[in-house]
Amino acid sequence: MNAPAEPSINWQSRRQDKQRRMASLEGIADGPIIPTDSIQAALERLLRSGDKVVLEGNNQKQADFLSRSLGALNPDVINNLHMVMPSVGRPEHLDLFENGVARKLDFSFSGPQSLRIGQLMEDGLLEVGAIHTYIELYARLFVDLNPRVALLAGFKADREGNIYTGPSTEDTPALAEAAAFRDGIVVFQVNEIVDDVSDLPRVDIPASWVDYIVEADQPFFIEPLFTRDPRLITDVHVLMGMMAIRGIYERHQVQSLNHGIGFNTAAIELLLPTYGESLGLKGKICRHWALNPHPTLIPAIESGWVESVHCFGTELGMENYVAARPDVFFTGKDGSLRSNRAFCQLAGQYAVDMFIGSTLQVDGDGNSSTVTRGRLAGFGGAPNMGHDCGGRRHSSPAWLDMKPDDHLLSKGRKLVVQMVETFQDSAKPTLVEELDALAMARDYQMPLAPVMIYASDVTHVLTEEGIAYLYKAQSLEQRRAMIAAVAGVTPIGLKRDPAVTAQLRAEGLVAYPEDLGIRRSDASRDLLAARSIGELERWSGGLYEPPAKFRSW
Amino acid sequence: MNAPAEPSINWQSRRQDKQRRMASLEGIADGPIIPTDSIQAALERLLRSGDKVVLEGNNQKQADFLSRSLGALNPDVINNLHMVMPSVGRPEHLDLFENGVARKLDFSFSGPQSLRIGQLMEDGLLEVGAIHTYIELYARLFVDLNPRVALLAGFKADREGNIYTGPSTEDTPALAEAAAFRDGIVVFQVNEIVDDVSDLPRVDIPASWVDYIVEADQPFFIEPLFTRDPRLITDVHVLMGMMAIRGIYERHQVQSLNHGIGFNTAAIELLLPTYGESLGLKGKICRHWALNPHPTLIPAIESGWVESVHCFGTELGMENYVAARPDVFFTGKDGSLRSNRAFCQLAGQYAVDMFIGSTLQVDGDGNSSTVTRGRLAGFGGAPNMGHDCGGRRHSSPAWLDMKPDDHLLSKGRKLVVQMVETFQDSAKPTLVEELDALAMARDYQMPLAPVMIYASDVTHVLTEEGIAYLYKAQSLEQRRAMIAAVAGVTPIGLKRDPAVTAQLRAEGLVAYPEDLGIRRSDASRDLLAARSIGELERWSGGLYEPPAKFRSW
Repeated sequence: MNAPAEPSINWQSRRQDKQRRMASLEGIADGPIIPTDSIQAALERLLRSGDKVVLEGNNQKQADFLSRSLGALNPDVINNLHMVMPSVGRPEHLDLFENGVARKLDFSFSGPQSLRIGQLMEDGLLEVGAIHTYIELYARLFVDLNPRVALLAGFKADREGNIYTGPSTEDTPALAEAAAFRDGIVVFQVNEIVDDVSDLPRVDIPASWVDYIVEADQPFFIEPLFTRDPRLITDVHVLMGMMAIRGIYERHQVQSLNHGIGFNTAAIELLLPTYGESLGLKGKICRHWALNPHPTLIPAIESGWVESVHCFGTELGMENYVAARPDVFFTGKDGSLRSNRAFCQLAGQYAVDMFIGSTLQVDGDGNSSTVTRGRLAGFGGAPNMGHDCGGRRHSSPAWLDMKPDDHLLSKGRKLVVQMVETFQDSAKPTLVEELDALAMARDYQMPLAPVMIYASDVTHVLTEEGIAYLYKAQSLEQRRAMIAAVAGVTPIGLKRDPAVTAQLRAEGLVAYPEDLGIRRSDASRDLLAARSIGELERWSGGLYEPPAKFRSW
Repeated sequence: MNAPAEPSINWQSRRQDKQRRMASLEGIADGPIIPTDSIQAALERLLRSGDKVVLEGNNQKQADFLSRSLGALNPDVINNLHMVMPSVGRPEHLDLFENGVARKLDFSFSGPQSLRIGQLMEDGLLEVGAIHTYIELYARLFVDLNPRVALLAGFKADREGNIYTGPSTEDTPALAEAAAFRDGIVVFQVNEIVDDVSDLPRVDIPASWVDYIVEADQPFFIEPLFTRDPRLITDVHVLMGMMAIRGIYERHQVQSLNHGIGFNTAAIELLLPTYGESLGLKGKICRHWALNPHPTLIPAIESGWVESVHCFGTELGMENYVAARPDVFFTGKDGSLRSNRAFCQLAGQYAVDMFIGSTLQVDGDGNSSTVTRGRLAGFGGAPNMGHDCGGRRHSSPAWLDMKPDDHLLSKGRKLVVQMVETFQDSAKPTLVEELDALAMARDYQMPLAPVMIYASDVTHVLTEEGIAYLYKAQSLEQRRAMIAAVAGVTPIGLKRDPAVTAQLRAEGLVAYPEDLGIRRSDASRDLLAARSIGELERWSGGLYEPPAKFRSW
């Protein structure tokens, strides 16, 4: 036996460091409560330059008061923070980098801030660690991206620090756990502090995980990100939706699924009670969902199509509707939604039959990306839900239907459907020779290109022209011909050979609407169960409360 | 707009059903507390025949009092339960099926009960839904396997129902959340009920997720499942460990990893402070771990090799050691370990460079399984951690080192290493022509064979003969030749052509110890940092308290 080599190691350095930082808040904090107007002084004492800091940027819940307070710190005192953020959605998130308080960024989704991230990188003010899918980022919090401080958001806290997150629990449990259980400092902004735990609707995060709470100067920002106004659904979306239902959902018996957030999939949701009903599919497809509470799902729910919906987060205006449908949604004893992105992403990865979503670019092989020149849009959840999970060991009819042969060592696979119109607008083809993501990778010298979904994971491409059943392709060449056959007049589509396309249709590798028994002339908005937000509200019996921007009636 | 089709749907049927069941406990339960000796009466009222029931069978925490109580119910009253269990490790788990209380089983791991599961299936008493990897089972709880009742275990509760799980938090948060937030009934057995929340070390599960608590008749069963006595590590294990460190960890710069639970990987843990140190690798490899607190990791921790360990569960005897090393382990404010299998499995899937583990059978292509005729052992976590996660979008040096070429659309991959001796014993080769799992699938007419890790995911096979760098194979034929080259005198190994093997070694596709600069004569137990449990205890400064069965000095 060798003697212990370094008996003098201090094994409690993180805990002691935390105690020192917290001790410096004496006179500022009252127990766990930081007064609203003392937040900057508190953050300057709790943080050290270079710290890894989790900041809750989320889809529907923002630690925006903490973010703004962080951005107002003196960069001579606190600088070079390494920010770990699921979603970088707010302008103030990037002010941190502009003023030097932060330097490095690991994130998942940037959305509206994607252009500015690229600019800050070019200006040398922001260094990207990596872009992740959501649960990949959470996973790293427990390995090599563990935070010293977590700045999080909830609806309410009691004076002990028990947290009610509200219906947007979202990423909070994962972010809080990673900090709370490795001597990180957990700070929650809340809209309201109540006296006693019994005054909270429920406890989502126990006080023993929380160090500080602060009442925000105003309730956190929230917007209806996933509300799609049915007025903007076109006849083409309806046609594509009919093809999806007939040529994919019905054919493969898709019982559990995730939908993207585009108008295409909103059209499918609104076709289930009409076109789907006419096909006799109720109770046979689309029973279990991993999905935010999309308003366009209301008619399908009200018509009895939907057995369960587990949610990543919430959707503004859907609070009362969700609370009134507890058989369908996951809710707490208080009646409000309990969302959880980690578990919903796991559901979308491991438990559902299908992921179907849109994208901005697809190449001739079937790789796709939402990155366009200069815009680092991030990934969100798509890479996780849009890949065939190699760890899956249970089967379902749809999953088994993807088996290439009957060999016992052959597996089924998840259906990963890319549903795109061949053109974004008259000038921008969706199907392209090379993804902009590759140029981006070359420009920024990234170790791998920001591809959203890889060709090897895609089982179907669906355009307004037809469906390519890629999982049946016997070769890369055949796969390319199948994609070209549904690529319209894009550069990819123009290369196709009509004789080959006819052969692919004859063999069932490609299906056009008429091959599925769908008449293009039937594809009309009249088929939608609701054609406006107002009709969605009426379907809900007034429970859905559309945000002002959607109230056009 | 179509009118709502079924305005008379009752959307609160689950909640009302829960209320009815709970109302029937009036006179039995005192608030959330069920008296110990009333548990059977309570379960008979809370359950309905055919219910989906989650029962916490875990590695280190068992709802065994609840399980025994369930097994004692009258099957004329409660029968045909559909059990959802991560781990089916206790004999009483299967008594449920023998007496007819339960009928269907969805599970992940069965271990010692694997033979009896097969027998019960043959007797027509038990129907297997599916066998899952752990987080796959959790994922289904939020989709199509949502439970009506969850029977869980913790160390302590207060009288409100706040739960301290103890250091084995394990699966509990996932199981509790799935039931608590869809009007399921959550029942916790605890070893002790304390008066007030302030009497709990910490709160792991808030009372607002919990319906009932019951003090168990005795503390739940726990055993040191993952303790490997260094006395049983052989010179061959040491040789294989040296090859792993030299030919894999050092070569690919493996910084974050999961280890299996065999003696092979225990040998690696004990070689880091000696052989690894002599190679100058400290701080360069093996910095972050997703791993239970293996006692054989103590010397590496004490020597300063290990920056962090996130744990699935705990290990009996390691409580005080873990509590004294909070810089390394994830602990709560109370000082005790916080484990969490869902997040640790996510870490092992999405965030680590490498999975390395042993198995019982490997075929000539590299598929592996722990199933042998008649034994349905289950999967545990290996399929999740032992596959290349297609959703990963961040890179690391080791991951990038697996890239097949420099194309921007090529990805890196996780290192998945199968580390096996060519024979299990003199009669049983590990490398076989066909996995027993295939015969099993045929016998039981399973929709897919119970394969633990598929060949397409395996990057390296390491035997006492050498390392096959399978990720470099250019064809299936070459891959097979590489495996044969390290397969010794098994049926697979005997087929190899010495000239081909020489060529594979020359090209660096296969490495024998001498190719790695390792002399077989150096591979001795003397190299182990600890050669007994007693030496591990001394490394720990007396903090590690070996269970009685390991106290042989």
